[in-house]
Amino acid sequence: MDSHPECLFCKIVARAAPAQIVYHDEWVTAFRDIHPAAPVHVLIVPNRHVAGLNELAEAGTDLAARLLLAAADVAHREGVHQSGYRVIINTGADSGQIVLHLHLHLIGGQHMRYPIG
Amino acid sequence: MDSHPECLFCKIVARAAPAQIVYHDEWVTAFRDIHPAAPVHVLIVPNRHVAGLNELAEAGTDLAARLLLAAADVAHREGVHQSGYRVIINTGADSGQIVLHLHLHLIGGQHMRYPIG
Repeated sequence: MDSHPECLFCKIVARAAPAQIVYHDEWVTAFRDIHPAAPVHVLIVPNRHVAGLNELAEAGTDLAARLLLAAADVAHREGVHQSGYRVIINTGADSGQIVLHLHLHLIGGQHMRYPIG
Repeated sequence: MDSHPECLFCKIVARAAPAQIVYHDEWVTAFRDIHPAAPVHVLIVPNRHVAGLNELAEAGTDLAARLLLAAADVAHREGVHQSGYRVIINTGADSGQIVLHLHLHLIGGQHMRYPIG
């Protein structure tokens, strides 16, 4: 597994930093955001270190597919697949991306505002 | 191609409804949102009709991968891959999903608010 020694999310994947993990498989790990924006707020990350969406193609199509499909799986596990949920991926400074390890926010359990951005 | 006769996004994919298309390939079509939330606001949709993220697994992993990777490609074409961009997928009523054909919002060209949801 390609991990980065200084990366918080790599440490969570390796169980070397605490997190409330709700799902994991050979490709991805999902855990609760420590500052939830909604009743359900889970982060889904690749197990290997990928800095962001701009770098995902280099990591291969299998991982790209699994990341996106895992969001629907976790929504089902969290009980929001029918009521509705939002998946958000932030990339770069304008977006507010903080941790430079690709992560999908999965948010649900409340009515979300629209428009977006 | 599986299309739905009443679906606006199927019509756009088929060039039977107007849209400002910025990218297309065998899997996806990307076009500008008619009510942009930011200077760059592009919708990326599968060419075949998929209602939402809950139904994406049935459509196969190749499409899932291509959808997510196309977002990074379009961000590059739109010149926001370095400055930053946000990808948003709404699913179901709580999220504000309006058109029941899966679409990724790609938003950039401005500083986006945080938190999200």
